[in-house]
Amino acid sequence: MRSRHAPHEWTDRSNDCRHNWTDPSRAIRLTAMAHQPTTDRGRRSRDRIVAAASELMATHGVSGTGIERVLARAGASKSQLYHFFDDKDDLVRAVIQARLDGVLGAQGPLLAELDDWAGIRRWLDLMISENEAHGLPGCPIGSLAAELCGRDEAARADLERCFEILESHLADGLASMRARGLLVPEADPRRLAMVVFAAFQGGLLLARTRQDVEPLRVALDAAYEHLRSFRSR
Amino acid sequence: MRSRHAPHEWTDRSNDCRHNWTDPSRAIRLTAMAHQPTTDRGRRSRDRIVAAASELMATHGVSGTGIERVLARAGASKSQLYHFFDDKDDLVRAVIQARLDGVLGAQGPLLAELDDWAGIRRWLDLMISENEAHGLPGCPIGSLAAELCGRDEAARADLERCFEILESHLADGLASMRARGLLVPEADPRRLAMVVFAAFQGGLLLARTRQDVEPLRVALDAAYEHLRSFRSR
Repeated sequence: MRSRHAPHEWTDRSNDCRHNWTDPSRAIRLTAMAHQPTTDRGRRSRDRIVAAASELMATHGVSGTGIERVLARAGASKSQLYHFFDDKDDLVRAVIQARLDGVLGAQGPLLAELDDWAGIRRWLDLMISENEAHGLPGCPIGSLAAELCGRDEAARADLERCFEILESHLADGLASMRARGLLVPEADPRRLAMVVFAAFQGGLLLARTRQDVEPLRVALDAAYEHLRSFRSR
Repeated sequence: MRSRHAPHEWTDRSNDCRHNWTDPSRAIRLTAMAHQPTTDRGRRSRDRIVAAASELMATHGVSGTGIERVLARAGASKSQLYHFFDDKDDLVRAVIQARLDGVLGAQGPLLAELDDWAGIRRWLDLMISENEAHGLPGCPIGSLAAELCGRDEAARADLERCFEILESHLADGLASMRARGLLVPEADPRRLAMVVFAAFQGGLLLARTRQDVEPLRVALDAAYEHLRSFRSR
């Protein structure tokens, strides 16, 4: 399962959308991209295709999202799509990048404040309340990981990098807290960040399955208590 | 997203398999099934179709698994399939049932011993070592939940019931421990079981994405420490 790569094929069974994860911020490049547009108009076309693909994949999954529907939703032609993307795998990786940008764009201010207890609690509460308010849409990164990580090695590597980037904000905040004496010296910021992200992903899966935010709240509250068990004062 | 139901369609893009989750034990019926075979031969045919579908879905996901490949793998005809199943949704629900049976069959002895610290630790260690030994295949229930819970309401309800059944073993064990004075009276067995299952699902998703069992171990160790924080002696 690990590195075998079953290429994505184009099929078309999509008819709805819900989320637009794209965001103009483009701070972190997961992978070099061969066909970057050089004009504003090209960028808008490319962004429109990626946004359409991301929306459709949020509803139907990657394997349930076909080229015809992406083109119809984006108002783009097949030649435009193949101008920017070699194949579906290439588009999937652009979707991962767009979703990372979206998460960092939306959570950026809170992610920069994970270096005290109030900031961590605020961020956890936001994840709970936002997921509840929007009908438990799931994590834009985690849902792709669940579908792709055994099937598409390039996507898996990008998704691994996404988790690293997101977890590093909390790990950095916790490292700063330890340096300032708010956490005991034995606290391992990287492990603790992993505990919180696992609680988030697993709590969200249980919450979506039950159609009830409670498992997410319970899992994140327990993760927060776990962090607090390492406080030094 | 909650109750909308996009019917599964048959497509065929499958070419490999890995797991056989079916198991003869049939202790818990998730849903009434209309077309139960009445002969041993019928039962074998039906089981073969379900096993083939489950194996293919483990590799390609539900939307990546088509009827032709299921029939080829099962050595069954289309009329046999439609004798037992109304449509793909019906087959998906049979796969959920078979996977629940498989988990209960494989873990049953350990699930019956979750009423002391050693039994809980043994079960957590087995989940870590089994996942590591088999290349992090993922949870047979959780992977279906990740794909289906926003798309197929009947499947979602069955998967919710699967999680309830599995969590209830740990919750019952913890309730027994509380009754015997091993846990403080404030310990909530149901919430604590939820914390462990969220850690398992989330830790496994991170582990699969990283191709490294560490996040699963870290998440389950933290969940175990969380349980231990409620011990009374």
